Amino acid sequence: MTKLQDFLPAIGSRNPEAAAQARLHIDQLTKPLGSLGRLEEVAVELAAITGESFPVVTPPGVIVFAADHGVAVEGVSAYPQEVTVQMVANMANGGAGINVFARQIDALERIVDVGVANEMAAPGVIGRRIKAGTANMLREPAMSREEAARTLQVGSEAALEIIEAGAKVLIVGEVGIANTTASSAILAALTGADPDEIVGRGTGLDDAGWARKKQVVREAIALHRPDAAEPIDVLAKVGGLEIGAMAGAILGAASKRIPVLLDGFIATVAALLAVRLCPSSADFLIAGHRSQEPGHAYVLNVLGKEPLLDLQLRLGEGTGAALAYPVLEAACRMVHEMATFASAGVSGK
Amino acid sequence: MTKLQDFLPAIGSRNPEAAAQARLHIDQLTKPLGSLGRLEEVAVELAAITGESFPVVTPPGVIVFAADHGVAVEGVSAYPQEVTVQMVANMANGGAGINVFARQIDALERIVDVGVANEMAAPGVIGRRIKAGTANMLREPAMSREEAARTLQVGSEAALEIIEAGAKVLIVGEVGIANTTASSAILAALTGADPDEIVGRGTGLDDAGWARKKQVVREAIALHRPDAAEPIDVLAKVGGLEIGAMAGAILGAASKRIPVLLDGFIATVAALLAVRLCPSSADFLIAGHRSQEPGHAYVLNVLGKEPLLDLQLRLGEGTGAALAYPVLEAACRMVHEMATFASAGVSGK
Repeated sequence: MTKLQDFLPAIGSRNPEAAAQARLHIDQLTKPLGSLGRLEEVAVELAAITGESFPVVTPPGVIVFAADHGVAVEGVSAYPQEVTVQMVANMANGGAGINVFARQIDALERIVDVGVANEMAAPGVIGRRIKAGTANMLREPAMSREEAARTLQVGSEAALEIIEAGAKVLIVGEVGIANTTASSAILAALTGADPDEIVGRGTGLDDAGWARKKQVVREAIALHRPDAAEPIDVLAKVGGLEIGAMAGAILGAASKRIPVLLDGFIATVAALLAVRLCPSSADFLIAGHRSQEPGHAYVLNVLGKEPLLDLQLRLGEGTGAALAYPVLEAACRMVHEMATFASAGVSGK
Repeated sequence: MTKLQDFLPAIGSRNPEAAAQARLHIDQLTKPLGSLGRLEEVAVELAAITGESFPVVTPPGVIVFAADHGVAVEGVSAYPQEVTVQMVANMANGGAGINVFARQIDALERIVDVGVANEMAAPGVIGRRIKAGTANMLREPAMSREEAARTLQVGSEAALEIIEAGAKVLIVGEVGIANTTASSAILAALTGADPDEIVGRGTGLDDAGWARKKQVVREAIALHRPDAAEPIDVLAKVGGLEIGAMAGAILGAASKRIPVLLDGFIATVAALLAVRLCPSSADFLIAGHRSQEPGHAYVLNVLGKEPLLDLQLRLGEGTGAALAYPVLEAACRMVHEMATFASAGVSGK
């Protein structure tokens, strides 16, 4: 069996000197002290993450991982499983939300099939299939430990590739019918959260479907008893192929000191998996937005991250992070382009 | 004397048909219903404002109005009055925050001097000087009614010019030491708000300066008794040249069905002035961000507007609105670029 340490990259920590230098420079810019609020904080964080007091986040890279979930047969989504492959084709054609917002921010884009149920050969989709969707977690483990480890490896490799291609910040998104069910189960397993508190309506379940989804999460955890101390066990038993790949991608980015801008519920659960595997990866995460999915506030709180935007989104795909990206760009432009009191001849306080 | 109706443009109202068509189209896009939250609301609002179900907001236009305030001698700002002219020069050189964020969004930019104390001839600054700063409102009215009317006219003309040049959305910003004092006085006079509730620290007053600023607002209102039913009286007695110009610009944009994306406290007080002059102008306003200045939440509430961003900004200049602009752009791109369920062959619910 592949050992995690064989491919899990070494991850450093934040660079306090670069952060302090950025802070010093920001306090000399032609504006009242602290008046650019979170933009200033973000600039300092980006300096700490990248180790550069004048950080750069252009261009961003967006990777969307696609996979199916066996648990979809249990009626936990408002949409049928076939929608996954249709949405991947839509993404390959540039018609999905994430394509639109990725174009707006001039992002590098990758769509990676890590296990859509029906194999497809759309141009523009990178095939890294691990299996044809997970098994139904209500009957058996979603995947084997070996497969779970491979999701991490595939994700990490995808991150390293897009970084090699030039990405200066990473956004990970996903598509996969029923993946908020798997995310809820991972979150409950890792933290002990009550499914009633964290399971949401996903793509728009009615009350009966919502109750069923909570019950499915509860039963899957009771059946498999995933071990919170072993994130790979949680991922294998109640996870998703694309969720593991997202966690791997986050670890890959962190190993290269590339900031990860988190999307919504699923991406943030993947980030929690990453942090449980390598705690220092938490240093490289910035929360993009607060999703309407109730589990998102919960997992953000566990990670201690305050999101930049709250636009009441619940689409996933990486869209919320893509919409938050201009804040990161603005923070960097502030540092690079604003005049100082001295350079502009403006009287300081 | 110039009569307001001589130049105040006729303002229409929102177009419900365009809004309904936009809503219908958005509900056919490849995403769960409502899952793009406020982006969807903004797209519908932009359709209602512009009368186009497929609205366009590119390029945006940013106008910064600059002026001085006689009340600055009362110690109501953390910075001396000379900073106004220095900051205008900094803006003309592209080094201020608003320049940086305006470049990020590819905005048309104008800097208009409507009354900086020391006349300047910086290239790139449009001279529309009404007087060399307002009088000290603690001793006499800030300006005459005639001058107040001219600020509106100058502002409206500036808006019409940038719209003629191609701007599809208007952002108004300002620079003027002590202008949060004037804004607070206008807000208190128009709404009866208690200065204790709405006066903030501006660019960073200490406790003594903050107490003084509240006292100045209270005394100026007691001295002049501005008539809330006559916004032009309020603007003349306790207002500012740049604040009047911003109100005029907002009215000019509304007359052309151009959405106005509001910045922070000062811009939103100017919007309230505009709305009191022409109530239907409220239909054309979108709140960009929530400022840290306490009066901003108050005036947003009076206008019934919920801002898009909360990044704890308090710089002014139009910066918060410029940072919010990508949300408007994303809303338009969503409508124009996302595939529908039918066009993408994705199964709906």
